[in-house]
Amino acid sequence: MTREERFQQIAKELGYSFDGEIKVGGNYAPLVRHQNTIYISGQIPRIGNHVVIQGALGADVSLEAGQVAAKICVMRAVALLLKQLGSLEQVQKILRISVYVQSSASFTQQSEVSDGASEVLYSIFGDAGVHSRTSVGVFQLPKNAPVEIDFVVAVD
Amino acid sequence: MTREERFQQIAKELGYSFDGEIKVGGNYAPLVRHQNTIYISGQIPRIGNHVVIQGALGADVSLEAGQVAAKICVMRAVALLLKQLGSLEQVQKILRISVYVQSSASFTQQSEVSDGASEVLYSIFGDAGVHSRTSVGVFQLPKNAPVEIDFVVAVD
Amino acid sequence: MTREERFQQIAKELGYSFDGEIKVGGNYAPLVRHQNTIYISGQIPRIGNHVVIQGALGADVSLEAGQVAAKICVMRAVALLLKQLGSLEQVQKILRISVYVQSSASFTQQSEVSDGASEVLYSIFGDAGVHSRTSVGVFQLPKNAPVEIDFVVAVD
Repeated sequence: MTREERFQQIAKELGYSFDGEIKVGGNYAPLVRHQNTIYISGQIPRIGNHVVIQGALGADVSLEAGQVAAKICVMRAVALLLKQLGSLEQVQKILRISVYVQSSASFTQQSEVSDGASEVLYSIFGDAGVHSRTSVGVFQLPKNAPVEIDFVVAVD
Repeated sequence: MTREERFQQIAKELGYSFDGEIKVGGNYAPLVRHQNTIYISGQIPRIGNHVVIQGALGADVSLEAGQVAAKICVMRAVALLLKQLGSLEQVQKILRISVYVQSSASFTQQSEVSDGASEVLYSIFGDAGVHSRTSVGVFQLPKNAPVEIDFVVAVD
Repeated sequence: MTREERFQQIAKELGYSFDGEIKVGGNYAPLVRHQNTIYISGQIPRIGNHVVIQGALGADVSLEAGQVAAKICVMRAVALLLKQLGSLEQVQKILRISVYVQSSASFTQQSEVSDGASEVLYSIFGDAGVHSRTSVGVFQLPKNAPVEIDFVVAVD
């Protein structure tokens, strides 16, 4: 399977389409390229205009739901890369992801939430998807999202 | 108008001067350059020795005040770029900003706070100021600042 | 003294060994290189399988203990660089560190915690260790760590 086929397969498993235009509200861009490096804005689990999972891990959102949220963030980023590059084959390496997890006071499994993101990146890109990672527990996220992830990506 | 004229105009509108030396307290630098990329340390809305807006969004600080705080953070970063480069014309692209918003438990408008930062960057740099962005709500910030922003910038 | 000798001296002062293999649990890497830039995953003060300092600054963890935790995070990152590069002499510049401090509601000395990290980087690398820095106070961190730090490093 190609990377794009794996991307489409995961979309199907999640039950969402990531083909739509990703909108932004301000004077910023979802993705910026400088030479061979792409910076992707923080992604939340939004499908269309709806944040499909909301709340804090350790309170409203289970670990499993948090992992699904992390996967949706990654799929949005991959959809942006696909749209920008025309093909996922031009992705050389996922360099870094920063994973912000909306957490209740006692929730310390931020890394386990991030594992959902890492799993999707590895499934789609193989060794090129093995990234550096930072996982932290934050107090709130835009639109009450449980997870937000940004990306630095090396491309051909 | 040149970029520097727009910078000075916004300074006037905000009612602050950004000409002073920016001090740091430890073994780190406000700005580090590697080849054509500049990394700017996290900026808080400090003028001289005074953090001019303090507290949490959703509690002590209104959305409007939070946006002003975000603008001041950006103006400090632009002042650093001006000092380092001698001219803002050498800024090729604002690649990424990470916006940390001190938030109360129910505040979810971190993106709207960040809009203040994005607006200033676009006003000064035009298309070169259109950046990728991550906005998160954190529990506390140094010196009780409501907003902290760091930057990655491409230069000629 | 060489950089590696200073690294070993600080390890001795802290009372820990950083020679062991650093394990990761998911489909990600502790360190990723792209051309002359290395991204290091978020490090917590873990020695072997044990997070040696746990809790929140301003509550369970003193400023001094937080600074020690920050130093351990840096030492882990330097150990990763040493293992990857074979020699610390190939480190050209520490470009950025992001310091996430698990903070109680009223704790605002995140910068002072980060000073522990900056001090170690400067001790080992001298001018090449003078970095840009962002310090924020977060609500929780993986495994109840008091501090987490990630790194961007330029190498020869």
